[in-house]
Amino acid sequence: MKSKTKYYKILRELQNHRNNDFTFSSGHILGSMCTQPHNIAKEVYIKFLETNLGDPELFPGSKEIEKKLIRFIVSILNAPKTATGIIGSGGTESNITAIWLAKNITGKKELIIPKSAHFSFEKIASLMDIKLVNMPLDEDYCMDISDIRKKINKNTCAIVGIAGSTELGTIDPISELSEICYDENIFLHIDAAFGGFVIPFLKKMGYDITDFDFNLKGVSSVSIDAHKMGCSAIPLGALIIRNNKWLDKISVKTPYISGKKQAGILATRSAGPVAAAYAVTKYLGVEGYKNIVRKCMDTTRYTEKKINDLGLKLIVKPTMNVPGIKLKSPSKVSKNLTKLGWKVNKMDRLSAIRIVLMPHVTKEIIDDFIPDLKKACKEAKEL
Amino acid sequence: MKSKTKYYKILRELQNHRNNDFTFSSGHILGSMCTQPHNIAKEVYIKFLETNLGDPELFPGSKEIEKKLIRFIVSILNAPKTATGIIGSGGTESNITAIWLAKNITGKKELIIPKSAHFSFEKIASLMDIKLVNMPLDEDYCMDISDIRKKINKNTCAIVGIAGSTELGTIDPISELSEICYDENIFLHIDAAFGGFVIPFLKKMGYDITDFDFNLKGVSSVSIDAHKMGCSAIPLGALIIRNNKWLDKISVKTPYISGKKQAGILATRSAGPVAAAYAVTKYLGVEGYKNIVRKCMDTTRYTEKKINDLGLKLIVKPTMNVPGIKLKSPSKVSKNLTKLGWKVNKMDRLSAIRIVLMPHVTKEIIDDFIPDLKKACKEAKEL
Repeated sequence: MKSKTKYYKILRELQNHRNNDFTFSSGHILGSMCTQPHNIAKEVYIKFLETNLGDPELFPGSKEIEKKLIRFIVSILNAPKTATGIIGSGGTESNITAIWLAKNITGKKELIIPKSAHFSFEKIASLMDIKLVNMPLDEDYCMDISDIRKKINKNTCAIVGIAGSTELGTIDPISELSEICYDENIFLHIDAAFGGFVIPFLKKMGYDITDFDFNLKGVSSVSIDAHKMGCSAIPLGALIIRNNKWLDKISVKTPYISGKKQAGILATRSAGPVAAAYAVTKYLGVEGYKNIVRKCMDTTRYTEKKINDLGLKLIVKPTMNVPGIKLKSPSKVSKNLTKLGWKVNKMDRLSAIRIVLMPHVTKEIIDDFIPDLKKACKEAKEL
Repeated sequence: MKSKTKYYKILRELQNHRNNDFTFSSGHILGSMCTQPHNIAKEVYIKFLETNLGDPELFPGSKEIEKKLIRFIVSILNAPKTATGIIGSGGTESNITAIWLAKNITGKKELIIPKSAHFSFEKIASLMDIKLVNMPLDEDYCMDISDIRKKINKNTCAIVGIAGSTELGTIDPISELSEICYDENIFLHIDAAFGGFVIPFLKKMGYDITDFDFNLKGVSSVSIDAHKMGCSAIPLGALIIRNNKWLDKISVKTPYISGKKQAGILATRSAGPVAAAYAVTKYLGVEGYKNIVRKCMDTTRYTEKKINDLGLKLIVKPTMNVPGIKLKSPSKVSKNLTKLGWKVNKMDRLSAIRIVLMPHVTKEIIDDFIPDLKKACKEAKEL
C-alpha cells in the first residue's frame, strides 16, 4: 500500500471509532466534569506537543509558561508568597501527591476523609498503605465534623476536606476544619479539583459561599483542575502547597537529566496542556471565568426548576452546578436515558442520578433533555 | 482589548517563550530519550483532545482504539493471551504501577534493583515506603547477579531488571533473572521504557541481543514507552502485565462514573495520545520500526567511530543507540557544548556524557557536532 493511502486509511479507521464516542458539542454529555476545551487551548496545545517539562533545561521557554500558570492559580486560591505548585495530570495525581507529602512530613499513615471523598483516596490507601478514617456526612451531604477531634490521634497524617464533591458539588465546613488543623498542627488538604475554578468566581460575584482556600490559615494544600471548570484540555491538574520548602519531602535526585531534583510523581510530561491552560486563563481572565460560572449557575437554577416541575426531587439544593436527582431506581432511569442518547451518572449509593451543568450544556439543551427525562422516568415508574 | 487582538497577543507571547526552547527538528537535542512525534501522531492527537478514557462509557470508540494499541504492544512483547495493559503517562507511572501491583500481590516491601535503575525507583521508595536493595553492576554496566540469591529474603516483593538503561542503554541479564524469579516465585518487573521499542526490532533484524520480554516465563510485567523510541507523542507509556486477573489488586470501585472499577493510578486521561500512538504503530508497523531502529543504530556506529577518531573513549560498546563518552570533567564539556548550542547529558556518577541517537539525529548532524565536541573537549583540557 502506498504510504499516503495508508495514512488516510488510518485516519478513516480512527474517525470511525471516534464516531462511536459521545461528544461535548452535541450537548448530550450531562454526566462529566470535563467539557470541550476552549479553542485557544486546542491551538496552543499542538504547538507544544513535543516539549518535555521533565527536562526543563531543554525547554526553558515552556518552563517559564508553567511558572506563569502556577502564578495565576496561586492568585485565585489566595496562596501566600511561600506557596508553589506542581502541575500534573489531574485531581487523582494531585491528591496522591498531597497525601504523599503529608505522609513524608509527618511519618504517619492515617487519613481522615469525608464519606463523600473521591475514589482517588481509595487508590491512595491501596498505593501507600494508608488507613482511611471515614467521617459521616450531615443532612446537607457535607462532612459532619462534630466528632472529628475523637478521630484525630497520634497516627493522623492529614485531614481532607472537599470543595466541590464529585457526587453533589458540596463543600465541607473548611473554615472549621482549618481552625482545628491549625490548632492541632495537622496537615489539611483540600480537594477542589472541581470547585477550584468555580468557588473563587462565585465569591467574586457576591455569592455567600464557604471559604476553602489559603485565606484559611490551616489549609496546607489544594488540588485544582484546569481541565474541569477551567475549560482547558486534559491533562491539567495542579497541586498548590503552602510552603515551597515542602517540595524537598517529595523530591528525588535526577542524575542524568537537567535540573538537580524533581518533585512530584511524573517525570516526562509535555508542556502542551500547560501552555494551553495558561492561554485559556490569560484569555478568559477572572472576568471570563465569572461569566462562565454565572452561565453555568443560571442553567443549574433553570434545570432545578424544570426538574421540580416534573415532580422529581433534588437531593440537596446545589451549591455549584452539580444537581443530584433523587430516584428509586437510578440505574433504570440512567439506562433509559442512554437509549434516548443522553449520558448522566447513576449514583447507586445515593439512589440518585447526577447531572453536571458544564459550559457545553445550555438551557436549550436542557429544554431538549427534560421531556426525555420525563419519558425515562415514566418508563422506570418513577413518575 | 478586542477579543481577537487578545487571542493573537497571547499566541505571540507563547511563541516568544517557545522560541527559547530547544527543538528536536534543529537536531541539537542530543540528550533526550524523546523525539519529535511522527506527523500522523500530531494530526490524530488533536482530534481526540476532548476524550476521556477515565470515563469509557462516554467514549467507547476511543476505548476500542486503546484496546487495539494494547494488542500491538502485547504482540511485540510476546505476551501471552492472559496478558493485558494499562496505558499511562510514561515509564515512571508504569514503574510505580508495577511495584504497587507486586506489593499488593505479595504484601511485601523490599525491592531488588540494579544500581543503574531509573530515578523513578527512588520515587517509588519514597511514595510507598519500599526498601530498595541495590545490586552492583558488572564491568559491562549490567546488573551483577552473582550474589542475588543472598539478597532475596522473605520481604522481597519484586526484582527489577532494566532493558535499556537510561544512562547507557544496557540490558540486564534478564534470562537469568527470569529463571531465578520463576524458581523462587518472585515478581519480575522489566523496565523497558526505552528498550521496549528497540530490542524487539533489533531481534527481528538478527541482532544477537539479550532476551527481555514475556517469552521468558519469569517475566511478570514490562514498562514500555511509545513516546520514546515508539515515535509517538507524550504522554504514552504502557505497563503490560502477564495476568489480567492481577488488575483486581490495583483497582478501586468507581461509584459515579461509568464502568464499575478502575485499575491503575490515573483517572481522567485523554485518548489523544492513545489514538496518536495507535496511528503511529499502525502506520509504521514492524517494518517501519525496524527501519527506524536500523537507522539509529547506523548513526550510533558512525558516531562511535567519530568519537574514537577524536581520541575519546566510550564507557562500553553501545548495545542500543545510547553511547556514553568517558571524560574527566563531564560538567565542563557539557557546559561548553551548551554554549555551542548542543544539549547532551552529563552523568557525574559515571564521569561521562550521554548522547542519545534518536530518529531526529542524522549523520549530517553528527558531522556538525563532532567539531564542536572536539572544541568543547579541548577547552576543558580533555584533548
